[in-house]
Amino acid sequence: MASNTFGNIFRITTWGESHGLAIGVVIDGCPAGLSLTNLDINQALATRAPGQNALTSPRKEPDVAEIYSGVFEGRTTGAPISIIIFNQDVDSSKYEPVKNLLRPGHANFTYLQKYGCFDYRGGGRASARETACRVAAGAVAAKILEKYDIQIHCYIKQIGEISTESVDFDYLNKSKIFCPDQHAENKMIDAIEQMKKAGDSLGGIVSFEIKNLPVGLGDPVYEKLEANLAKAMLSIPASKGFEIGEGFNAARMQGSAHNDCYTTKKLGATITNHAGGTLGGISTGMPLTGSVAFKPTSSIAKKQSTTDIDGIEQTFELPAGSRHDPCVAIRAVPVVKAMCELVLADAILINSTSKMENILEARHGCSD
Amino acid sequence: MASNTFGNIFRITTWGESHGLAIGVVIDGCPAGLSLTNLDINQALATRAPGQNALTSPRKEPDVAEIYSGVFEGRTTGAPISIIIFNQDVDSSKYEPVKNLLRPGHANFTYLQKYGCFDYRGGGRASARETACRVAAGAVAAKILEKYDIQIHCYIKQIGEISTESVDFDYLNKSKIFCPDQHAENKMIDAIEQMKKAGDSLGGIVSFEIKNLPVGLGDPVYEKLEANLAKAMLSIPASKGFEIGEGFNAARMQGSAHNDCYTTKKLGATITNHAGGTLGGISTGMPLTGSVAFKPTSSIAKKQSTTDIDGIEQTFELPAGSRHDPCVAIRAVPVVKAMCELVLADAILINSTSKMENILEARHGCSD
Amino acid sequence: MASNTFGNIFRITTWGESHGLAIGVVIDGCPAGLSLTNLDINQALATRAPGQNALTSPRKEPDVAEIYSGVFEGRTTGAPISIIIFNQDVDSSKYEPVKNLLRPGHANFTYLQKYGCFDYRGGGRASARETACRVAAGAVAAKILEKYDIQIHCYIKQIGEISTESVDFDYLNKSKIFCPDQHAENKMIDAIEQMKKAGDSLGGIVSFEIKNLPVGLGDPVYEKLEANLAKAMLSIPASKGFEIGEGFNAARMQGSAHNDCYTTKKLGATITNHAGGTLGGISTGMPLTGSVAFKPTSSIAKKQSTTDIDGIEQTFELPAGSRHDPCVAIRAVPVVKAMCELVLADAILINSTSKMENILEARHGCSD
Amino acid sequence: MASNTFGNIFRITTWGESHGLAIGVVIDGCPAGLSLTNLDINQALATRAPGQNALTSPRKEPDVAEIYSGVFEGRTTGAPISIIIFNQDVDSSKYEPVKNLLRPGHANFTYLQKYGCFDYRGGGRASARETACRVAAGAVAAKILEKYDIQIHCYIKQIGEISTESVDFDYLNKSKIFCPDQHAENKMIDAIEQMKKAGDSLGGIVSFEIKNLPVGLGDPVYEKLEANLAKAMLSIPASKGFEIGEGFNAARMQGSAHNDCYTTKKLGATITNHAGGTLGGISTGMPLTGSVAFKPTSSIAKKQSTTDIDGIEQTFELPAGSRHDPCVAIRAVPVVKAMCELVLADAILINSTSKMENILEARHGCSD
Repeated sequence: MASNTFGNIFRITTWGESHGLAIGVVIDGCPAGLSLTNLDINQALATRAPGQNALTSPRKEPDVAEIYSGVFEGRTTGAPISIIIFNQDVDSSKYEPVKNLLRPGHANFTYLQKYGCFDYRGGGRASARETACRVAAGAVAAKILEKYDIQIHCYIKQIGEISTESVDFDYLNKSKIFCPDQHAENKMIDAIEQMKKAGDSLGGIVSFEIKNLPVGLGDPVYEKLEANLAKAMLSIPASKGFEIGEGFNAARMQGSAHNDCYTTKKLGATITNHAGGTLGGISTGMPLTGSVAFKPTSSIAKKQSTTDIDGIEQTFELPAGSRHDPCVAIRAVPVVKAMCELVLADAILINSTSKMENILEARHGCSD
Repeated sequence: MASNTFGNIFRITTWGESHGLAIGVVIDGCPAGLSLTNLDINQALATRAPGQNALTSPRKEPDVAEIYSGVFEGRTTGAPISIIIFNQDVDSSKYEPVKNLLRPGHANFTYLQKYGCFDYRGGGRASARETACRVAAGAVAAKILEKYDIQIHCYIKQIGEISTESVDFDYLNKSKIFCPDQHAENKMIDAIEQMKKAGDSLGGIVSFEIKNLPVGLGDPVYEKLEANLAKAMLSIPASKGFEIGEGFNAARMQGSAHNDCYTTKKLGATITNHAGGTLGGISTGMPLTGSVAFKPTSSIAKKQSTTDIDGIEQTFELPAGSRHDPCVAIRAVPVVKAMCELVLADAILINSTSKMENILEARHGCSD
Repeated sequence: MASNTFGNIFRITTWGESHGLAIGVVIDGCPAGLSLTNLDINQALATRAPGQNALTSPRKEPDVAEIYSGVFEGRTTGAPISIIIFNQDVDSSKYEPVKNLLRPGHANFTYLQKYGCFDYRGGGRASARETACRVAAGAVAAKILEKYDIQIHCYIKQIGEISTESVDFDYLNKSKIFCPDQHAENKMIDAIEQMKKAGDSLGGIVSFEIKNLPVGLGDPVYEKLEANLAKAMLSIPASKGFEIGEGFNAARMQGSAHNDCYTTKKLGATITNHAGGTLGGISTGMPLTGSVAFKPTSSIAKKQSTTDIDGIEQTFELPAGSRHDPCVAIRAVPVVKAMCELVLADAILINSTSKMENILEARHGCSD
Repeated sequence: MASNTFGNIFRITTWGESHGLAIGVVIDGCPAGLSLTNLDINQALATRAPGQNALTSPRKEPDVAEIYSGVFEGRTTGAPISIIIFNQDVDSSKYEPVKNLLRPGHANFTYLQKYGCFDYRGGGRASARETACRVAAGAVAAKILEKYDIQIHCYIKQIGEISTESVDFDYLNKSKIFCPDQHAENKMIDAIEQMKKAGDSLGGIVSFEIKNLPVGLGDPVYEKLEANLAKAMLSIPASKGFEIGEGFNAARMQGSAHNDCYTTKKLGATITNHAGGTLGGISTGMPLTGSVAFKPTSSIAKKQSTTDIDGIEQTFELPAGSRHDPCVAIRAVPVVKAMCELVLADAILINSTSKMENILEARHGCSD
């Protein structure tokens, strides 16, 4: 089943394996007339670049994306936009010795069962490398959001037992680990470095806060804004949960406390924002807030007991020279942002057709 | 935008408003040859019936569903299955006086802005009444799951501050509130009754545990099993979060603790199941486990400050005779189950095409 | 596979069998704000009503459609529009004796092979009765086209060996058989009555001419306007061919004759219109013209040799009291029109998102 | 709107402009386990290669396709298959002088109106060069058809006024212009060469005949096999019509002549095949036959009157050095074949889910 496509009108299809020749994304349904350059894409990709510091995987691959189609004289033309990133650091010989072992926390058993084969080199299609294509596509989607001055902040809310206690978006831009609270950041870095030494890893939570959303995005019943965000987030490797607004905390609340009462300041504005920016699956104009949980990185240096594909007991040990991040949540931050961008750009396009009066305002090509 | 359809191959489209003539669902893509009767549907609907006890909304409407197409001589024919439930208890005059007030926690403001109009009678399309159609469709999907002996348990895990401490599926069948822990159930009932008296409401968490799943369900990259479950769950009215396996708790864990190690007992079986039954978005054969958070019911008897659609300050008070559940999570249990059934039936059909050898085994019509 | 849905944004799903309880259509994605009543639907249905004259099937069923959802206070709300037509004349006992015979020109063999079962009563899902739902949905789509003053003319171009020689749209409204040429009409009626007496049937061609189309409808590459029209038309029972503009005649032409040269009268207008109103799959603003070929009705009174489902030689004879049209093309005229309406309404909605400047003009819900 | 994707389960997305860096196709939903190499693709591409003889466009570009993903150790893995063809002969400076002229028979006016911009270099996205991606994807689809020994013959049936009178598939393999009738071929070649000298072009008809199809492909109501074929064919640049079986000729026939009577030789086999291999939109097992009409090439050497984009009268003359085919139908033959392959492969996958008994036979991944 075709399953590498995301979105309805603004629709991306990604392809490529971790250790293949290249990875790429085709963006179809992007409206014509947006300015777009390779630089736009590569700046976004830089935010997820590995090897920036000791805390993330030391893969030294400078991801360079190039636009192959859909842009002419600096603007999108309405044709599909193909973006390709060639793989450069793809020695896959080290995976050979472990290719017949079931790898704890990884997808090789399920792929083997489902497809009867598995491209074991660096995780193949199951690798988080695929997320570079999401970030590239997100940079294109962002061009649409820019027109509405929509602002997306994504940040580390929790790593292991350490939570962010304050949110300073100015500091966020300086943080090495997308943490908006310098005090918490220091503790998080300590915890991660300790894990790294121990050959272990840590989970984390990434939060998003999106401002300046138009009212009306998201479609009842099955295309609710939060439903599409939930799908988007749970499609990111290693994600285990999604919540919007109060999320799981809402279970503990009473209706009189959770309901957001309307204020006379601005039509539709509410005093509180427990809902997190949607009602009935449609954006309210209040900030869109939520979180995504990530499990600790499955690739750890510690030995683990397992079996091989014949069911014989074995020990799994990470191949020498393998790269891994001690905390995958950090590198997930730009991916969560990209998924927000993709969902919102699509929702904006879809919303153009909700009312007949809107449609009538859209100028079809006409010769007068 | 068409947004009332869920699923890829096994695809449902629901229609109808809370206080319209009827509600219904069309199921397209259901394979031929399944036995199906009105009774199958109505038994499922009975599990969400209101008015069963003091804890749920006293709407006295006996939902009677009827199959209008797609079944011949007791079996599905491959044609679309249309199921209709006529509305019977639809006095909507009481909504008239509040139709111009923004209703805290409800969708009337967002619908009005998005569509320029709103069927305010009982929430119209935004009403949870739509979920009856999901339950009806889930009963059809369940016919596919039956063939694989897949067993789905859905239950109340938490209401307000009270959590289920043990899980006894035998007791679950007897519980009035889908709670598998009799001790917790008593405390939950007390809490709900107290809320009801106070004119307030409580949130809750619904969990699912699904056994006997075949390995291989779910498709990378964007159609991961948990991604489709997340979308399914966040499309349920009042839901605020979804998690699979350890979910948000995974953020606190270390990789060495979270990774599920393989055992020699059965190929692919793991000693623990922190992942919750999927790896790489594909079912592992281990139980599929997860939870859905629900906010406290937005309809409360207490007065709330608000504005009207012109932004003038007003007080919102529930129209006399309005029905509401003090804890929407309870009635959400059969809906969560139905969404699991729909996602899994679709995943089973989709998985038929993953390997060429499977396709070759499917007998096309042939005359020999 | 879900296959009873047509359209992308304006999307219909039809259901129901010829001799079941009812047939119906759910229209999802219709913009809010269109005026719509049962009368709009029933007026359209009247154009395909059987039993009007001796030339069409004498089924005496007054199709009465009713809107069950998606309309509030006379206007569409953006919610799915469910339209139901109850079946009233459904004695199906006469099909019992022939249920095990392969019926020449009909779908019972293929359905049996594909699904392992067949609702043989009046053709079940394969009956042309399904097209009533298309006409009902077309009447809703027409509400969108009205806003642009788009005018669709569909007419009989050929029946058997007799072709329409002139096209008089004023006469078309008076014709009993949708023929715009009174002289040809007389000859066609004679031919059909002769066939009826002989227990035989005739094929025909239906043409369309659509004026006032905005420039820009249709999307390259696979959603070309003519590609979607072609699919729409070949999905009508008994249709065997589709052409746009010069169609098959273009094969005989030279480029210098076929190319339509631009005139200075109006930007984009051409002196000739061999293309038939599209270039590159996109509407040019010139009239959209094309034709659909229909085979002679498969149900004929003459005996035919066949086999039963076990391959034993048999004779097929139409059950006594069976209704059939001696020329299915006549009743196809309103169906061809409906499919034009559905394709164009969808194309208009889709085109709202082609340019960023259009999207920016669409007012999202906003509180200022 | 995303419109560069074709297919449901076996789904292709093409990208790239005539004079951009490259063109490509992503195939998603291809089952795992098919053997596939670059050679498979390039052999198919060779059949559409330009410059083979005097009758087709002299573009000297050796199209070399390369598989970038989705194949591991010589077999498809179930991951998306990305195929890229780099453009090599892309001097586009010659288009500069005519970029502001409306080009008769071309899409530049409609693209300009729809998108507000146009990549005028060689037709950009509207160029027939896109069809190379269809042929590449068709070669992958063919791997599925091979398993069923399905045989597709596509051939020139008519060019200008000259029709093929006999069909000799052995000769077809030798023909320079895909003509199965040597006598007609000679006359066609003469006619084309004459047109070429005159700076003009000719239309043509391409026919297909497909044998060994399983019974049961195609899905009622809107996904009929012939409906999807019609859409596929009308999405090919320059195509103007589609017919199946008797096609437009059926309009002249009587039911008693058109109906195909069943024979006792084989269950479901018919004595004649006027239907062309489908009934009710589902394959009967008889040969699938039909035709596609192509207009004469729009690019002609003769001067044509036109206007510029400001509506001022101008003369359009083909830029010096422009390539064009005097008869586009010839090069369309492999494209028609590719579209047949794509439609049929998709139909086979879809049909795997029509009956519950089929689904149960598909082995999901399992550990026993």
